[in-house]
Amino acid sequence: MSLASLDVLQHPSLPQSSITLFEAKAKKKVSFEEISKELGRDEVAIAALFYGQARASAEDIKKLSDYFGIDHATLETQMAGFPDRGKSIEMPPREPLIYRLYEIVQNYGYAYKAVLNEKFGDGIMSAISFSTHVEKEIDKDGAAWAKITLRGKWLPYTRF
Amino acid sequence: MSLASLDVLQHPSLPQSSITLFEAKAKKKVSFEEISKELGRDEVAIAALFYGQARASAEDIKKLSDYFGIDHATLETQMAGFPDRGKSIEMPPREPLIYRLYEIVQNYGYAYKAVLNEKFGDGIMSAISFSTHVEKEIDKDGAAWAKITLRGKWLPYTRF
Amino acid sequence: MSLASLDVLQHPSLPQSSITLFEAKAKKKVSFEEISKELGRDEVAIAALFYGQARASAEDIKKLSDYFGIDHATLETQMAGFPDRGKSIEMPPREPLIYRLYEIVQNYGYAYKAVLNEKFGDGIMSAISFSTHVEKEIDKDGAAWAKITLRGKWLPYTRF
Amino acid sequence: MSLASLDVLQHPSLPQSSITLFEAKAKKKVSFEEISKELGRDEVAIAALFYGQARASAEDIKKLSDYFGIDHATLETQMAGFPDRGKSIEMPPREPLIYRLYEIVQNYGYAYKAVLNEKFGDGIMSAISFSTHVEKEIDKDGAAWAKITLRGKWLPYTRF
Amino acid sequence: MSLASLDVLQHPSLPQSSITLFEAKAKKKVSFEEISKELGRDEVAIAALFYGQARASAEDIKKLSDYFGIDHATLETQMAGFPDRGKSIEMPPREPLIYRLYEIVQNYGYAYKAVLNEKFGDGIMSAISFSTHVEKEIDKDGAAWAKITLRGKWLPYTRF
Amino acid sequence: MSLASLDVLQHPSLPQSSITLFEAKAKKKVSFEEISKELGRDEVAIAALFYGQARASAEDIKKLSDYFGIDHATLETQMAGFPDRGKSIEMPPREPLIYRLYEIVQNYGYAYKAVLNEKFGDGIMSAISFSTHVEKEIDKDGAAWAKITLRGKWLPYTRF
Amino acid sequence: MSLASLDVLQHPSLPQSSITLFEAKAKKKVSFEEISKELGRDEVAIAALFYGQARASAEDIKKLSDYFGIDHATLETQMAGFPDRGKSIEMPPREPLIYRLYEIVQNYGYAYKAVLNEKFGDGIMSAISFSTHVEKEIDKDGAAWAKITLRGKWLPYTRF
Amino acid sequence: MSLASLDVLQHPSLPQSSITLFEAKAKKKVSFEEISKELGRDEVAIAALFYGQARASAEDIKKLSDYFGIDHATLETQMAGFPDRGKSIEMPPREPLIYRLYEIVQNYGYAYKAVLNEKFGDGIMSAISFSTHVEKEIDKDGAAWAKITLRGKWLPYTRF
Amino acid sequence: MSLASLDVLQHPSLPQSSITLFEAKAKKKVSFEEISKELGRDEVAIAALFYGQARASAEDIKKLSDYFGIDHATLETQMAGFPDRGKSIEMPPREPLIYRLYEIVQNYGYAYKAVLNEKFGDGIMSAISFSTHVEKEIDKDGAAWAKITLRGKWLPYTRF
Amino acid sequence: MSLASLDVLQHPSLPQSSITLFEAKAKKKVSFEEISKELGRDEVAIAALFYGQARASAEDIKKLSDYFGIDHATLETQMAGFPDRGKSIEMPPREPLIYRLYEIVQNYGYAYKAVLNEKFGDGIMSAISFSTHVEKEIDKDGAAWAKITLRGKWLPYTRF
Repeated sequence: MSLASLDVLQHPSLPQSSITLFEAKAKKKVSFEEISKELGRDEVAIAALFYGQARASAEDIKKLSDYFGIDHATLETQMAGFPDRGKSIEMPPREPLIYRLYEIVQNYGYAYKAVLNEKFGDGIMSAISFSTHVEKEIDKDGAAWAKITLRGKWLPYTRF
Repeated sequence: MSLASLDVLQHPSLPQSSITLFEAKAKKKVSFEEISKELGRDEVAIAALFYGQARASAEDIKKLSDYFGIDHATLETQMAGFPDRGKSIEMPPREPLIYRLYEIVQNYGYAYKAVLNEKFGDGIMSAISFSTHVEKEIDKDGAAWAKITLRGKWLPYTRF
Repeated sequence: MSLASLDVLQHPSLPQSSITLFEAKAKKKVSFEEISKELGRDEVAIAALFYGQARASAEDIKKLSDYFGIDHATLETQMAGFPDRGKSIEMPPREPLIYRLYEIVQNYGYAYKAVLNEKFGDGIMSAISFSTHVEKEIDKDGAAWAKITLRGKWLPYTRF
Repeated sequence: MSLASLDVLQHPSLPQSSITLFEAKAKKKVSFEEISKELGRDEVAIAALFYGQARASAEDIKKLSDYFGIDHATLETQMAGFPDRGKSIEMPPREPLIYRLYEIVQNYGYAYKAVLNEKFGDGIMSAISFSTHVEKEIDKDGAAWAKITLRGKWLPYTRF
Repeated sequence: MSLASLDVLQHPSLPQSSITLFEAKAKKKVSFEEISKELGRDEVAIAALFYGQARASAEDIKKLSDYFGIDHATLETQMAGFPDRGKSIEMPPREPLIYRLYEIVQNYGYAYKAVLNEKFGDGIMSAISFSTHVEKEIDKDGAAWAKITLRGKWLPYTRF
Repeated sequence: MSLASLDVLQHPSLPQSSITLFEAKAKKKVSFEEISKELGRDEVAIAALFYGQARASAEDIKKLSDYFGIDHATLETQMAGFPDRGKSIEMPPREPLIYRLYEIVQNYGYAYKAVLNEKFGDGIMSAISFSTHVEKEIDKDGAAWAKITLRGKWLPYTRF
Repeated sequence: MSLASLDVLQHPSLPQSSITLFEAKAKKKVSFEEISKELGRDEVAIAALFYGQARASAEDIKKLSDYFGIDHATLETQMAGFPDRGKSIEMPPREPLIYRLYEIVQNYGYAYKAVLNEKFGDGIMSAISFSTHVEKEIDKDGAAWAKITLRGKWLPYTRF
Repeated sequence: MSLASLDVLQHPSLPQSSITLFEAKAKKKVSFEEISKELGRDEVAIAALFYGQARASAEDIKKLSDYFGIDHATLETQMAGFPDRGKSIEMPPREPLIYRLYEIVQNYGYAYKAVLNEKFGDGIMSAISFSTHVEKEIDKDGAAWAKITLRGKWLPYTRF
Repeated sequence: MSLASLDVLQHPSLPQSSITLFEAKAKKKVSFEEISKELGRDEVAIAALFYGQARASAEDIKKLSDYFGIDHATLETQMAGFPDRGKSIEMPPREPLIYRLYEIVQNYGYAYKAVLNEKFGDGIMSAISFSTHVEKEIDKDGAAWAKITLRGKWLPYTRF
Repeated sequence: MSLASLDVLQHPSLPQSSITLFEAKAKKKVSFEEISKELGRDEVAIAALFYGQARASAEDIKKLSDYFGIDHATLETQMAGFPDRGKSIEMPPREPLIYRLYEIVQNYGYAYKAVLNEKFGDGIMSAISFSTHVEKEIDKDGAAWAKITLRGKWLPYTRF
């Protein structure tokens, strides 16, 4: 199996921790799934954490430091703050895989809105009180399918 | 229950069929879930069809025409062509509900890519060989959660 | 006192209800503050409702219809759906008053983030579970000050 | 409590003083609230000052230098000029917390304008003759709410 | 002398009053200078008013109505609200005359800021507490020069 | 009095001469007004020259070199070429002081055009055969006002 | 020979006069070259005038009215004002012929600047005190070449 | 006479050869006209070559290397590839001299198209099979005029 | 087989001829392949002609008029001018099918350039002296493949 | 024959492997066609691989390492991850050769869609299950033509 890695030249706006973590990952040759088991978090959350898009708890930092043999103080300094999200990508995404997700929003955006409004009323699906998960399915013909689940709390607009 | 409707002033770039269908829907006062049962398709697909983002089969057109009492020839003329997708929205989306979906792509885009690449290799999740579904969940505290599933065929890059 | 009105040529993307309501308001010569008292909602919410940015309850529609003498069925048809927010303005705002608010976000955005993160942890202030209010203050020198309050529920990022 | 910090890779356009100050803050492990008390200024103003969005008086520089043990001449050189505001962020903001504030302007912009115009006449709320404050409220159910106050002088358009 | 006029096809976002006023001006064949004398306001203010960028007082509306023979009630309805500024132009300006002004800001922007900061301290020149005037000068060689004066109140940043 | 300075991190696209000159200015602690007297040019021109937006004559370079004690050959090399204008700023300007000037163009652009066309005919006010000046005025109430004068040659369109 | 014409659906922002003139041209079946001889102006100037990008003198209007049999008063009303230039096109141009001209500026822009600066000093070639001409050349192999001449007055930057 | 030079801080996207060549040019103090004579090519072509916008033949490289005393192997490595055109500038151009050329395309684009189409039929003037030249003219009043000639092969659209 | 049609609401910038032709096509229920045989041109060229992106010869107009029973004079008026290309689409394309083509350019653009430069030297593949063709292939597993051929004349840069 | 090379200053966002490979290519002085034969892949694929737009198999890396004498471990580290496509270019492309391809999509986009839809139904041509090839043709007059073939699997929209 091949592993996702980071080329810093292509991602100059990621935090210092991304460089530290991806280098450690490349050295240890482990997948996000494996790290995920170590930290007890979903592998998308782990990958997001590597890209500076999710927060690591003190315990996460401790585990990452132990698992990868990274100096704990260094990692703590790099990860102690609050993620500055949205710096991993410029929209519209030029990466084809990510563009397909963007296109789903572009094409089905109003359909989602109409269906959600009819089911839940006036409001939004939270992207904060939110989790997501990726699965691999193999159909009866042996073809592979990716299944992404998005689950967010419904927030109704406050009447004021 | 309230129903999703269309204000043409706000959507001048939708096809003629959107106007016809939303008017009929408003008159008959039915939800996408109800229409969905009538046509035997997912309600997101139905809503996409209303917004000109999905194709109606000849049978769909027949059923829509019967169900809503719309002149069949008129509807056929309006829906016989091929959808010109992407005209329902301008990106980035300004509608808060749709923006949250966009933000998920913005924040988790590279995390999805990394996890999918490690699971499937070099390729993309298709947005064409693709289906999606929306569910409503109520947790033990009575809070509502929206769950959106995206399922697409995995397409590996051709080696050439 | 002068009253806010709507010039349709300048706002072609507002919903039909905006035209109906602003015309009625101009005819009856009432301020948002007065309408606010009639509906028992904050005047910013009322103005947002006039611009198609907030939802009217069935009771709101009834009251508006009675108060302005607008045919109830017409108003219901125009307002029964779900607001398609974000269509009243193009960003960055060119209107000087609104630009000042935009500039506050531009200038103090990261300062707000830093302070809120330190006070609440990793999360956001909701713009949905949210209310806002405008006040006029006169200082001891007789100068007028505008005070805008934004109050939103704190949503911590879900750990997953 | 966790502290807001600065990752220079993510903010290459901030002034030299931001680097100096955030490094000192990380070393001393103090919050903006604590620094705020030291300087006798609002914590949002302090955070803005750290991001190069507010001006430090000679006395502020002196106090910061003493408090953090930064060489006074260095800090003076870095902070003596006039802030070059607007360089901390690119609009529209991609950071979710800041985006929510942007969305509030996008959604309620014209509502604020209409209400302010009716209350004050033709003019704007100044973003210069302006102060802002953040508060944390806990409601009776134990939920946390953020309250942001914006207070600006009303400037009527000059008639000429 | 030729007169400035309005071609509605080229300015679809101007308010209804712009059409009314420019038509009356074309019919009466008067310059902004002449109207300016009638209303006792600067001719730039008058032109701004014609483009929907400045507010007319009740007295201005009365005078315009009398001077041009426009039905007073009609003009009042069209001009009674508050100007929705910024809709006369898209930036960057494509009109060469206006582009030159834009270019002056682009080229001398930071020079103005540096000089103003050194003269006045940290703050801005108001564009609201503001007036402007245009003059024509003929030099000794008979060449014509345009002189535009911008005069705005200096607003220092509030310390908070 | 405080002095305008340059933070190179915030202005990576300015020419080498800007760095040299601003460093010398900071060291000598002089204002643009003082330098202006030394060179016999308007202080806005001097500031523009420091930002790489105006050309220095051989004599200017000599005087700057003498005044600041900068090696003449170095300064000559850095300033001998032709200014590459427009690199000091990205439009729309995010700096509030400069934005106000931009807003004046946005709001009064067509008003200026209409008035200038009626006064001068079809043409433009040159931004090249052009000078500008800044003045500080104190009104009878002690309030400070900034006055900016723009003076450009009128260029009529050639008939061909 | 085929003639250039105007499809209003593709050019909704041109002035009313463009519609009048192009309709008359299509009816009379004349080329810009022929009209050019009639008015004694360059054919590019004539075409620019048809697109609302150049000014017609009183005599031009008279001749156009006579030549095309258009009611003089109508044409005068439509053409008496000052051209609002820049509304015929959106940049970057999507039309391939015009894009090629744009590409020439993009590719050779700095080369032109360097050469012009060395020949003339610090300044610009005016686009106002300016004329342009198009010629057709047939080389010895029978191939056709287009030759466009741009001729503008050199404007040196004023020293101030 | 002053010479055009390159400030690398202002042009970070130019090829390595631009730095080498401009440095050599500054050292040798020669104009593009002089280099032009040396290489037997038009001075605009030479300047374009310096900005990485035109290709140097093997012989050009040899001559440049000899003329400027640059190590031949170095120059060959830097110039042997194919120009990656379009990296010298961001459009719309902010440099006033280049903007004027851009404005000519913006204002006269459709006029050129109409005239060229009538003269040559459906096609374009090539920007590849293309040459350009700059001349200086002094009129009888002593005023300087710049004349730029663009000459491109006419390419008719292939009928297929 | 289903037929491509035009919904005018979605394409307000197409020429009048597009409406005429698509209406006739819908009425006669013919494919582009069938029309292609009638006119003896490639079906992509025919479709381009329907979208106003290719020129019809006098003979094409005659044939279209006969074939569809459209009044010849009407069609001639609508199609006699020169195509104003590029108005059928806004880039980046939001339509998924067209986006895939755009993505091919985005992903392989520099690869094409490198390979073409090595094969042909410094120049471009013309998009004017150009033809294109679409084929359908069925592979041995019964899967359908689209094959698009682009063929353009190689234009070497003129040395000048 | 000249060879395509890479100037890192012009491509700061390419992965580390691009620098390694292009340097090796320049040193060995080989064309993409030659490398293509070595690896048994199409030369466009090879060029794409050099620009970080295609994936190298373990065997490709081995061959590249052997062929160019690059340390295998280094190359493996640089190329083992998954390509982050779309970083080689900013759209719209400014490079004239690539722009021509972009223009083909812009001009013929809807024509391709219409023809493909009629031939295949509702769907897209995959850019992933995709290969492309470049050929050089010399016509009977000795003129060179470039022929680019795009071949992608047809993906019909899933009905759901």
